[in-house]
Amino acid sequence: MRGAPNASTALLTDHYELTMLAGALRDGTAHRDCTFEVFTRRLPGARRYGVVGGVGRLLDAIEDFRFDEDELAHLAEHEVVDETTLEWLRDYRFTGDIDGYPEGELFFPGSPVLTVRGSFAEAVLLETLALSVLNHDSAIAAAATRMVSAANGRRMIEMGSRRTQEEAAVASARIAYLAGFAATSNLEAGRRYGIPTGGTSAHSFTLLHDDERAAFQAQVEALGTGTTLLVDTYDITRGIELAFEVAGTELGAVRIDSGDVGVLARQAREQLDSLGATGTKIVVSGDLDEYAIAALRAEPVDGYGVGTALVTGSGAPTAEMVYKLVEVDGKPVAKRSSHKESRGGRKSAIRRHKDTGTAVEEVVYTVSPGASEPVPGPHDRFVPVPLVRGGTRVPGLPTLADSRERLRHALVTLPWEGLKLSRGEPAIPTTFHRA
Amino acid sequence: MRGAPNASTALLTDHYELTMLAGALRDGTAHRDCTFEVFTRRLPGARRYGVVGGVGRLLDAIEDFRFDEDELAHLAEHEVVDETTLEWLRDYRFTGDIDGYPEGELFFPGSPVLTVRGSFAEAVLLETLALSVLNHDSAIAAAATRMVSAANGRRMIEMGSRRTQEEAAVASARIAYLAGFAATSNLEAGRRYGIPTGGTSAHSFTLLHDDERAAFQAQVEALGTGTTLLVDTYDITRGIELAFEVAGTELGAVRIDSGDVGVLARQAREQLDSLGATGTKIVVSGDLDEYAIAALRAEPVDGYGVGTALVTGSGAPTAEMVYKLVEVDGKPVAKRSSHKESRGGRKSAIRRHKDTGTAVEEVVYTVSPGASEPVPGPHDRFVPVPLVRGGTRVPGLPTLADSRERLRHALVTLPWEGLKLSRGEPAIPTTFHRA
Repeated sequence: MRGAPNASTALLTDHYELTMLAGALRDGTAHRDCTFEVFTRRLPGARRYGVVGGVGRLLDAIEDFRFDEDELAHLAEHEVVDETTLEWLRDYRFTGDIDGYPEGELFFPGSPVLTVRGSFAEAVLLETLALSVLNHDSAIAAAATRMVSAANGRRMIEMGSRRTQEEAAVASARIAYLAGFAATSNLEAGRRYGIPTGGTSAHSFTLLHDDERAAFQAQVEALGTGTTLLVDTYDITRGIELAFEVAGTELGAVRIDSGDVGVLARQAREQLDSLGATGTKIVVSGDLDEYAIAALRAEPVDGYGVGTALVTGSGAPTAEMVYKLVEVDGKPVAKRSSHKESRGGRKSAIRRHKDTGTAVEEVVYTVSPGASEPVPGPHDRFVPVPLVRGGTRVPGLPTLADSRERLRHALVTLPWEGLKLSRGEPAIPTTFHRA
Repeated sequence: MRGAPNASTALLTDHYELTMLAGALRDGTAHRDCTFEVFTRRLPGARRYGVVGGVGRLLDAIEDFRFDEDELAHLAEHEVVDETTLEWLRDYRFTGDIDGYPEGELFFPGSPVLTVRGSFAEAVLLETLALSVLNHDSAIAAAATRMVSAANGRRMIEMGSRRTQEEAAVASARIAYLAGFAATSNLEAGRRYGIPTGGTSAHSFTLLHDDERAAFQAQVEALGTGTTLLVDTYDITRGIELAFEVAGTELGAVRIDSGDVGVLARQAREQLDSLGATGTKIVVSGDLDEYAIAALRAEPVDGYGVGTALVTGSGAPTAEMVYKLVEVDGKPVAKRSSHKESRGGRKSAIRRHKDTGTAVEEVVYTVSPGASEPVPGPHDRFVPVPLVRGGTRVPGLPTLADSRERLRHALVTLPWEGLKLSRGEPAIPTTFHRA
C-alpha cells in the first residue's frame, strides 16, 4: 500500500483550517458571509508577467472535497475537532461562488486571481488546496511560458518528470502543454489529460547493446526510420555517421544531450547535410532553461527537450500566491500590522489596452454596492470570469486546449518589454481604482 | 472527476522507458542482466551533505507498479508500444533485487544511493518513478535537515503545503518529520504516515470576528488556554495584551508571522514576562529558511513554523540524482562522450570513521567476482542495505521513526565543518577504491 491519494481531497488541508472552523462554529461567526481572495504581492524572480495555471485541476479537486467516513474517523481519532464540527463536516460541500482569472490568463501583482465567496466555514476550508494547486501550477506555467517564448516557435518537449515529485510531474506536464509545449514524456499526463506523449531512448539503450550500431538498428526496427536517435553516448560524429548508415536520409532526428549543445548542433547540421540528410532534425536536451534556449536561437536546433528547469519553475518553484479574507458580511477587512498588508474588499479587474491591442494597465477595483467601477474602453476587458455558482461548476468553462490558445493570444498583447527574460518591472502596472 | 492518481503507479513513467523496452524485446537484449545505479554527481547548492529521502515511498510505489487493463488500454490506443510489448507488460512485476542507502542516511557525490538489478526490461521501467520519488524527497530532506540543524533543538513545525503541489505537500510533510520536525500542518500526512499534525488559526480568523478579543476568546473556548494565539493581525503589543487578558498566564504560545520577527520576539518575551506569562512560548513564522532560523538563535524564540523554503528545497528543489545503467551481463558499461561521465560497474560503499566516530571518507567500490574490496576498519560500516530481493521487500526495513533516528545519529558523525550552512565542499570526500 503506497498510501495512494484517497478519492477525497479534503485532507490535503492544513490542520488550522479545521480548528478555525471549530472555533467559528462555536461562536456563530462561521456563518458570516465571507470573500477570500487569491493574489500575489509580487512576481517571483522579478518576472514580467505571471501565468494562471491550475484552475481546471482546482475545480476538479473542489468537487472531490468532502469528508467521508475515512476522513472523519481520522479527525475524530486525533481529536482535531469536536463532535459538532465533525457533524458539520459530514455534510460539507462547497455551495458558494468562485470567480477567477481563466487558466492561461496573464496576471500581475495584486490581480484578484481567484475570489471565493461563501460562509466563512465553507470558504476557509478551501484555502490550502486552492493555494497548493494554483501556486504550483502557476509557477510552472510562468517558467514554461518563458521557455516557449524563448524558443520562438521551435518544438518543445517536456521531459522533467524525474526531477520532481511524481504527481507534481503529471501536473507539470499538463501545464507545459498549456504553455505551448508540443509533447511530454509523462505517460500519466497523456492518459489523464489527453496530452501528446513522446520519447524514444536513453543512453542506457545504447549501453545495453553490444555496440551503438546494434542499438540504433534495434530502435529503427521498433520505431521506424522517423525516430530520434540519441547520438552522444560515445563519439557524436561517429554516432551521426552510424545513425545515417542505419536509417539513411529518412532519419527523423538526432538528439544531443550533453556537451556544448550549440556547437555540437552546428557540427551535426553540417555533417547531416553533407550526408544528404537535410530533412533530419536536431533535438537538444540537458539542463536547458529559458536562457539557454534563447542563447541557442542562432543555432540549427529544431527542438528542445526540457526537464529540470521546467518542473522546478526555473528558479521560482512557487508563485507565492496567498488566500486572504477580504470581506466579511459586506465589509472590507485587512491585516494591518506590517509590510505584508492586504487591501480589503471584494475585487475585480479590467485589463486596459491601446487601440492596437497592446495591454497597458491592470485596473483592480473594489466590487461593492454603490461603489463606482471603472468604465471599460472599447479595447478593454474584464479579466475574471464566473467559475462556480452555488457550488456547481459553471458550464462551458475552457478546456486545456482553449487555455493554451488563450495564453498564446494573451502574450501577443504584452508590450514588447514584457517578453524580456531579464529581471524587471511587471509588463504592465497594476492600478487600484478608487471608488 | 479530478483525475485522481490510479492505484497503479506504472504510468508515472517516461514514454521512452516503454519504447526502449519494445526495442529491446524485439532484439532480445531486454533479457540481459542489468544493474542500474542511482547517484548524484554533486550536491546541489554546494551543500555539505545529502540526505536520502523517499526510500519508503519508493518501495510502496514499486509494489503498485503494474499494468492493469486501464494502463494497457491507454498504451494500445496511443500506439506507444506494439502488441508483443503490451503482452509482456500485462504480466509485469519487478522480480529483481534492490539495494540502497537506508532512508535518513547521508550521501555524498558518487554514493551509490540505489542499485537496481534485474533484466533490462524489468529494471529500466523503474527509472522515472525511482528518480521522481528520490529526487523530490531527498531535496526536501536536505533542506529540512539543515533547518533542524540550524534550529538547534528548538521546535520546528512544517506548514508549507500551500506552496507546493498538493501531493508533493504530503511527501514534504513526511520528510520534514524524518528530518526532525515535530509536527506538520498537513492533515493527509497525518493520516497517511501517522505524523503529528498541528495548527491553530490564521489572520482570517481574527479578521472574521468583530475584534481581536472576540477572535481570541473564540479560539480559547474551542482549543483551551494552551493554544497558540496569532498576535500580529493589528498591533502586536496590543495583541499580546489582549491574548493575556483572554487566556491569562496559562496561554500556550503567541505566534508572530510578519515583520522583523527577531526584534518582535524579544519585545514579546519582555512583555509576556512582565505580565507574568513566563511560560507562554513564542512561535515565529513567515518566509523562514535555514539562514533566518540560524540568525534567530540568539532570540527568545521557542518554535519555528516553516513553509515555502522547506517545500521548495530552499533553493535546491531537486537532488539531481540520475539512474544510470552501469553493468550488463556482468560487464561494466558507461557513457563516455563528455563531462557527464559515469563510472561503470556495480558498486557499493563503505563509510570510514575515526575511532572517535567522526566520519572521514565515503569509499565507493566496484562489486564484482574476484575484485578486491576495501576492508572495513572497526569503526567503518557498509552503507547500502538490501531493500528488495526477488521482487519482494526485505522484511524488517526501517520505519519512518527509525529513519528519523538514523538521521539524527548520522549528523552527529559529521566533522563539524560538515554542519556549516555555507556553500562548500562535501563534509567528507568520496574516494573510488581501485580493485
